[in-house]
This record gives sequence, structure tokens and C-alpha cells, in this order.
Amino acid sequence: MTDLPVTIADIRTAAAALAGQVVETPCAEARTLSQITGARLFLKFENQQFTASFKDRGACNKLQSLNAAERKAGVIAMSAGNHAQGVAYHAARLGIPATIVMPRTTPFVKVRQTRDHGARVVLEGEMLAGAFAAAERIAAAEGLTMIHPFDDPAIIAGQGTVGLEMLAEVPDLDCLVVPIGGGGLIAGIAVAAKALKPGIEVIGVEAALYPSMYNVLKGEEGQCGGMTIAEGIAVKEVGQITRAIARDLVDDILLVTEAELERAIGLLLAIEKTVVEGAGAAGLAAVLAHPARFAGKRCGLVLSGGNIDLRLLGEVIRRNLVREGRIAGLRVQISDSPGTLAAIASLIGDGGGNILEVNHQRLFLDVPVKNADLDLVIETRDAEHLTDIITRITAAGYPVRQLRPSGAEG
Amino acid sequence: MTDLPVTIADIRTAAAALAGQVVETPCAEARTLSQITGARLFLKFENQQFTASFKDRGACNKLQSLNAAERKAGVIAMSAGNHAQGVAYHAARLGIPATIVMPRTTPFVKVRQTRDHGARVVLEGEMLAGAFAAAERIAAAEGLTMIHPFDDPAIIAGQGTVGLEMLAEVPDLDCLVVPIGGGGLIAGIAVAAKALKPGIEVIGVEAALYPSMYNVLKGEEGQCGGMTIAEGIAVKEVGQITRAIARDLVDDILLVTEAELERAIGLLLAIEKTVVEGAGAAGLAAVLAHPARFAGKRCGLVLSGGNIDLRLLGEVIRRNLVREGRIAGLRVQISDSPGTLAAIASLIGDGGGNILEVNHQRLFLDVPVKNADLDLVIETRDAEHLTDIITRITAAGYPVRQLRPSGAEG
Repeated sequence: MTDLPVTIADIRTAAAALAGQVVETPCAEARTLSQITGARLFLKFENQQFTASFKDRGACNKLQSLNAAERKAGVIAMSAGNHAQGVAYHAARLGIPATIVMPRTTPFVKVRQTRDHGARVVLEGEMLAGAFAAAERIAAAEGLTMIHPFDDPAIIAGQGTVGLEMLAEVPDLDCLVVPIGGGGLIAGIAVAAKALKPGIEVIGVEAALYPSMYNVLKGEEGQCGGMTIAEGIAVKEVGQITRAIARDLVDDILLVTEAELERAIGLLLAIEKTVVEGAGAAGLAAVLAHPARFAGKRCGLVLSGGNIDLRLLGEVIRRNLVREGRIAGLRVQISDSPGTLAAIASLIGDGGGNILEVNHQRLFLDVPVKNADLDLVIETRDAEHLTDIITRITAAGYPVRQLRPSGAEG
Repeated sequence: MTDLPVTIADIRTAAAALAGQVVETPCAEARTLSQITGARLFLKFENQQFTASFKDRGACNKLQSLNAAERKAGVIAMSAGNHAQGVAYHAARLGIPATIVMPRTTPFVKVRQTRDHGARVVLEGEMLAGAFAAAERIAAAEGLTMIHPFDDPAIIAGQGTVGLEMLAEVPDLDCLVVPIGGGGLIAGIAVAAKALKPGIEVIGVEAALYPSMYNVLKGEEGQCGGMTIAEGIAVKEVGQITRAIARDLVDDILLVTEAELERAIGLLLAIEKTVVEGAGAAGLAAVLAHPARFAGKRCGLVLSGGNIDLRLLGEVIRRNLVREGRIAGLRVQISDSPGTLAAIASLIGDGGGNILEVNHQRLFLDVPVKNADLDLVIETRDAEHLTDIITRITAAGYPVRQLRPSGAEG
């Protein structure tokens, strides 16, 4: 450990500055998830911060570090996500004028949320890059201090207080499993944790579609890109400061698939009754994906945020139901004679299944002239119930196969 | 206040018995929901109990009140819901054999959950009534103690500890808003709260489809029945003990519609990042439905449980999106000429809308021969975006109207 730009002393100072200003979130044992994974899991509920992510910590710490002239001139940040909310909210609390630059395509609800915190919102650029250029232009023109989302020692020290609190509450943790976007959260936590308990393992998690820190630490060149549910950690280029700290202090990085992230979101909803965004589920996804790696270990997972659009959450729930066999598509091959649809529908209904959709079309199907395909979407109580219904249909003489929708890969 | 079958002393005794055995759940101010409702809301997170409902308290207290012979013989309960989980879990912890009778149609996942707690599960009867008869038969035959879900002083005293904790954490509450099923929770809370703070208002909430305690207290005869999302409080007949306590100590009862319950579930997900079942959302639904009644008051709401099936939760999310105008059905009247579908699709796509479903059928539609209806389901960013897209289509010369699916009444 050479001289790093953030020290445990900086994080303790941040903790003092943040006391009473951000939520000291609970860090609770998750017994059922521990049973499921074979590890012993402790969850740090950063989704319970006021703006529902750990970003409150870094933003509040950075804003408090500004001098009187900087505070008076105001700050600017570029973000359509959690950083925007954290900066807008704490700037308003501290009486600092804030400008948030967001891409023009940002959903109105996020714009309004940010405005409701009292920030000036500027919509510029189609994508994040365009918005960032606009933010730099406005910052220069108006003399505003740019609040970087991660590559700043004051931001990193603020995020590091998560690690302090976790080890204060559960001192005997064996490892910490932390999502990585730009690297601010894991850098701060690693500095805190390794200072308090040098033997602790600090493990980062990235979406497999965005292995940016993974590339840096492993010397690989995996592609970054694509649509991930973990948009909060979909960062192509990690910070300079954060990568220096991670090189020194992060023990390993694991990559998780979209299906693993979705399953983790579903388990946290179903078992912990808590809403996390994709990034916030990354730690649990990693433990689920690598059970041997974590077996029997006391693992602290950071549920980094809870800002998931409800439409997206609904979609994740639906996809998990398909994976569990509770919603299924069936293609039944039928002879094209009167009464067949009624017969199949009765078989399903008598078996306790619920038909959601039917598609029975003969014009363009690739089947012999006297046959037809009947496509059904049905709901069942569980996978066994689905098997039971498929058996009934088959036993009645109708060949049936299950349709796998795209996205049911997991 | 005449002599009631449960006293504050009983509840204090229960609190001592439950210490370390159930979760002392947080009771936290909900600042954003307070802004939305105009009341000052404090939420008691009983969905964070181990089996995710307040039923842990009553079950654990009752089980601890049994003598050695009763413990050895074992207990029995009838429930397909939260009471089953509470009894099974705490009986196992205390080394008491437990039998849970569930209707035959109970989803396998609930059966397995109950078995996983170590209980013997007996599947009997198509409905709750049949299962209850079976439970009584087995109890008599095997000498088991029946654990009633609500109409028992030890159960009520256990649930009353919720009230003790809320007033300990927020002593200046003006009112408590509590869901009512059989009445055990509100009876216990009312005894505790009125003893600690006689001036406090205790307000019950029932689903409008099941106004059972409402009927008792108001002398009315409203029908009980129908499918409610708040199945945990869909009780046609409240208890005898619970009604006696409610008559004395409950100040008012409010009824909430299904749409209000669904909206409350959605707000708790979106803002508090917490999963509640329908019954658990009843308190917030009541405050949303009666803003003047609660304006400026410090209200404690009991989020009584979080056991909502994820399929149902997904459906609630979808219905809320329809209400908010973020998923909409449109019927566009088009002339049946080549290129029209492409033109409409372009208008929507250029406007930033996303087409989810298209239905374009000419055979059986009730329109002039050269016209046709094009039905679309689209997603938009928000209600304003939807209006914008409807305006685009209209301006291009296509009459369009929004379709209101059933269930979008609110």
C-alpha cells in the first residue's frame, strides 16, 4: 500500500461531516438468502438513503468541502441518475445553487424530481457525452464547481463511510462485495476496510457487458457496451484515482450476467422485501453466480441503490416468472377440426392453469394442411404445476412443446 | 374503558417475552410521502419481520404462553397466509411440533415455505372453511392446541407490542392508522396506544370489499365479498374479543378501494423502496384517500406485511403504469389503404413512443367498409409524452381515442 490519494483519516473526517446529514443505513443479516447461497450474508441498505443511493454520501461530503466563494458561485453536475439526485438534494440542503445537466431524452419524472430538489436543470445533448460537454461549457462560462460522480478524493472519502459503518456493525466480515461503476464506492470502501481489517477481502462486481475495471485490473480488453439492467454501473471508463486505489486494494473482480442480476433483484424483492436497482443487486448476483467462492464466508453486500423504474421492475418480475415456469408459452400441434380449441382449453382449465393469450392462425403456418399450431401463454402455480398441465395435454394426444421467449436464457 | 380482556400490562409482558425473539422493526419518517399526502407520516416496517408480517409477534407470544404439556403435544393452525408462516417459524424455534392446515389449492411455494420451517402441512378442503373444519378435527383427534389467528388475548397482546414500539420511537404521534382483518392487530395496538397516550386517535382501515369491522362499529350491513388485493384483511367475520376492544378504543374506520390500495403499493415501492402486500398498504391508501382528515397530523402507519406474490406485484405495477399514462391503449381510425400502418408507426416512433402491441384486423370490425381500426398498445415516458403522441397522430389526420382497460378506473 503506497501513498494513496484517499486515507482512512479522510474517511473518518467524512464520517464526522456526514453525521446527521445522511442516513446511517442498517446492515442486517439476511438469513434466508444465506441459506439459499451457502454464504453468510449481511446487507447494507444504501437504497434507504433519502435519494435512494449511496451517492448522497459523496455528494454531501464534497459540497461541504467547498469554500465560501465556491459555495456562493454554485456547483454543476452531469447525470441523469443517482448522482444528479444526490447533488441536487444536498446542495439545496446546504444552500448551494446547483445546476444539473441531463441528456434531452431523460424521462420527465427524473427531470421533475431533480427540479423538486431545487436544482436548475439544463437539458443538453442526446447522450451522456453531449450532456457532459455542455456541463463543462456552462461550468467555465459561469464559474461553477464541477462535482465529478466518482473521480474526486472528497467523493471517494464520502462513499468510504459505507465501509466504516459496515465494519462497525459487523466487525468479523470476511469479505465485502461491492458494485463498480466509475469505482468511487469500492475505492472508498476498500480504503476504509483494509485500514480497519487488513485481512478482509474486497471484491468488486461489474456487469459482464461493462467490464471496465476488470479490464484495468486483469489487463484484458473486454468490450464495453450494450443494454444492461445495471445502468448505474454501465461505465466504459473508470476513474484515474479510483483505478489507482483499486489496483492496490481490490482483491478480485467478478462479472455477472443480466440474468443473474435479474434473479438477484427478484430475490431481494421476494425475500428481503426491498427494491434495488440493477447495480444494487450486483453483489448478490455475484454470490449466486459463484457459490463456491463465498461458501461459509461472512460477506457484506452493498445494496447500492434502489432507483429502478417501475416499468423495468415489472419487466424483471415477468422474466423471472417465465424462468420459474410460472408463466409459460406452449405450442400445441392440433388437427384442424371443430372443437379442438375447446378441448385444449378444457384440459388447461381443468388442470388449474389460467390462459392469458391464445394465438390460433392457419394462414401462414409451416404445418401440413390439415394440422395447425395453437400458441398459448398460460400461468401456473409453479414449475411442477406447469409440468402437470403439459402432461395432461400430451396424454390427450396433442403434441406440445414449451416456447422459450428471448430473455429466458437463465 | 371498561375491563377489557387485554391490558397494557399484558402487552408489556408480551414485549418482554418477545425481546430478542422477533424483530424490533424500524419506525421511520417518510418525508416524500408526507409531502405527497400533506400529513406527517411515520412508517412501522412490520414487513421486515422474519416471516415478513406482524403475525410473528402474536404467534411467538401465544406459543410462549403454553405450558409444558401443551408444548409437548404440539399446536395446530389453519392458514394459507401470514399466520401459517408465523406459527410454523416460531414453533420450530421453540421446539414445539406444529401442524398447519392449508386449503388444497395453496400454491406449492407457500406449502414448501411452511414445510421448510419444519411444520407438518396438511392439505385439506378446497377453501378456508373446509381447511378450518379439518384443523378442528385434527386438533381434537390428536390433542393439539389450536392457535387462532386473532381472537385470543395472547395473540392480541403480542400484536400490541407494535403500538408500544411506535410510541416509544415517536411519542408525539397524533394518530395511528392500522389495517383490520380479524382485528387482532388494531385491538392490541389500541390497548397499548390509549394507555400510553389517551388522546391519540386509533383509526382502522378495511378494504371496501370487506367492511366487517366497519359494519360492527357503525351498525351497518355492507356486503363482504369479492377479490381484493388485500387478501390478508379479507375477513368476513371479525373476532369477538377484537370487536369488544375495537368498540371501546377504535375511533374510526375508513374503507379503501382496490385502486387506492394499488396506488399505495406502487408509491411504497417507488419512494420507500419497500415491498408491502395489499393489507400492508391499507394505511397509506386511507391517508391518500382522505387527505383533509389527516392534513398536518403526525400519523403512524403500520406496514403490516410484505408477502405479496410477485406475479400480483407485477400486475399492480402494470395497472399503475396504465393509470399514469405510461402504458396506453390507442384505437386509431384509419382508411384501409397501403402504407397507413407504416405512417402511424412512424408518427409514434418519431415522437419517442414505443409500440408494444399492434392489432389490425378488418374482418369483423364495426366500421365502414373502406375504414379500419388499428389498436395499439404503446409505452411513453409519462402522461405528457402520451398527450404529445396523441396530438401528433390527430394532427396527421387520423382520429384516435384512448382505450381504458378494465381496472384503470382510478
